[in-house]
Amino acid sequence: MNYRKHFMVTPGSKLKLGKIDPSFSGHHQHREQADAEIEKDRKKLAELQYLMYAEDKHSLLIVLQALDAGGKDGTVNHVLSAMNPQGCAVAGFKQPTPKELAHDFLWRVHPHAPGRGRVTVFNRSHYEDVLVVRVHKLAPKSVWSKRYDMINDFEATLASNGTTILKFFLHISKEEQLERFKQRIDDPARNWKISDSDYTERELWDDYTEAFEDALSKCSTEHAPWFVIPANHKWFRNLAVARIVVETMEGLNMKTPEPTVDLAEIKHRYHADVQEEKKG
Amino acid sequence: MNYRKHFMVTPGSKLKLGKIDPSFSGHHQHREQADAEIEKDRKKLAELQYLMYAEDKHSLLIVLQALDAGGKDGTVNHVLSAMNPQGCAVAGFKQPTPKELAHDFLWRVHPHAPGRGRVTVFNRSHYEDVLVVRVHKLAPKSVWSKRYDMINDFEATLASNGTTILKFFLHISKEEQLERFKQRIDDPARNWKISDSDYTERELWDDYTEAFEDALSKCSTEHAPWFVIPANHKWFRNLAVARIVVETMEGLNMKTPEPTVDLAEIKHRYHADVQEEKKG
Repeated sequence: MNYRKHFMVTPGSKLKLGKIDPSFSGHHQHREQADAEIEKDRKKLAELQYLMYAEDKHSLLIVLQALDAGGKDGTVNHVLSAMNPQGCAVAGFKQPTPKELAHDFLWRVHPHAPGRGRVTVFNRSHYEDVLVVRVHKLAPKSVWSKRYDMINDFEATLASNGTTILKFFLHISKEEQLERFKQRIDDPARNWKISDSDYTERELWDDYTEAFEDALSKCSTEHAPWFVIPANHKWFRNLAVARIVVETMEGLNMKTPEPTVDLAEIKHRYHADVQEEKKG
Repeated sequence: MNYRKHFMVTPGSKLKLGKIDPSFSGHHQHREQADAEIEKDRKKLAELQYLMYAEDKHSLLIVLQALDAGGKDGTVNHVLSAMNPQGCAVAGFKQPTPKELAHDFLWRVHPHAPGRGRVTVFNRSHYEDVLVVRVHKLAPKSVWSKRYDMINDFEATLASNGTTILKFFLHISKEEQLERFKQRIDDPARNWKISDSDYTERELWDDYTEAFEDALSKCSTEHAPWFVIPANHKWFRNLAVARIVVETMEGLNMKTPEPTVDLAEIKHRYHADVQEEKKG
């Protein structure tokens, strides 16, 4: 199965989330089938990230969005954590500060874009400004409705500078969300994560769905595609994200750079006597 | 063996690196003996970092310094990468930009200090301003000699705000460094890492040693201790760093925070009907 093709929101199309089964798991029936594949992909991710760092030519931006309990943290923890933190940063975007709100909505985001050779994961992102802002009417429609084009322009600028962009919407059902909230109540170690807003936000499920459908439809482009990942099964979500990131990075045909010095000369000048010493 | 005690530079003492064996490996004779312990500590590191994030009270700053090929990257890769990149960032400090040089030497460092609940690893740090700057005379002695006090004051400010600071000097011998350079020549995948300056910097070994001895003596404090880690054996270096970080984090007695909501009330209000549905 070509995950990239299968889950990409076709640029220019109108997405209907209701038509995508959040419990889809392809030919995999159980977690065990997927786990070995995920582990292989984690190893590949580590290698590819190192190669990206060494080659110092491309960069990679991964955007994660989902409704509460959709699995953003879990995707970082189980998939993307395979990359070396030295070359892979995670930037989280929570409620903006007063200072951030005094600027345009991309101002706080831009400094976190990955530089050459680097990977950055956005846990939430500039898309919040057409999601929560729209649903809670934090800005009038005349303001947020213009942002889709601004986002596309912003992402095009990053892409033209060598940044590959992959955007994942982790798609869960309303029932699965409630079940996950319940698991947090049943697990004392996770009780602290529960807030009243988890439940009040649930009441806005349909509004969020509409906002996501619009954002993903308007902002899935060739250079910065959106993927809708069926995420009711955590293991399938991990597998699909891992596969798409690995396949995309492999497609960059990255190479270890050539040495910048004359190796023979250095060997002769500095390491000849090492071998002498060993012989002596 | 109490690694913390054993490798700490006693505050107020005068360090002589020549007296510390870089090939020391305690009661461990082989890599295999250490590897299982390191793996256990990696699991603990992941748990402790999550707890730090959840509790949102403490933060941890880890400083790595060493001569070239001393193992800074390897320590990140094999030990500290166990932590979730969502709560653990790595900040590298290379040659300063003209803009950075237009400011005081702590200006570019301060923004990377870890916020509450977070871990940050400094790969090189503000100590470069009393190391390379001193050895290469990039600033006069009248300037760099005042920086030890400034560093101590800066670190005291971080510590008083809840940041635990651990500083590791990875101690290798001059022969081991040459051997590691040679391995890079013999491994085509790592040829690109070799530069002429690797070898020219070697000629300044004694100057660097003196600069390190001064920095570690003057700036090992109760609230921000320096550790000299014997690092000729990579596996022992990993073990010692992992042990010290784990023991220090365990000493913080961190606890999962209490829930901020009335769980019984939430259970009754939102999850009663879930169980009804299941029964029905």
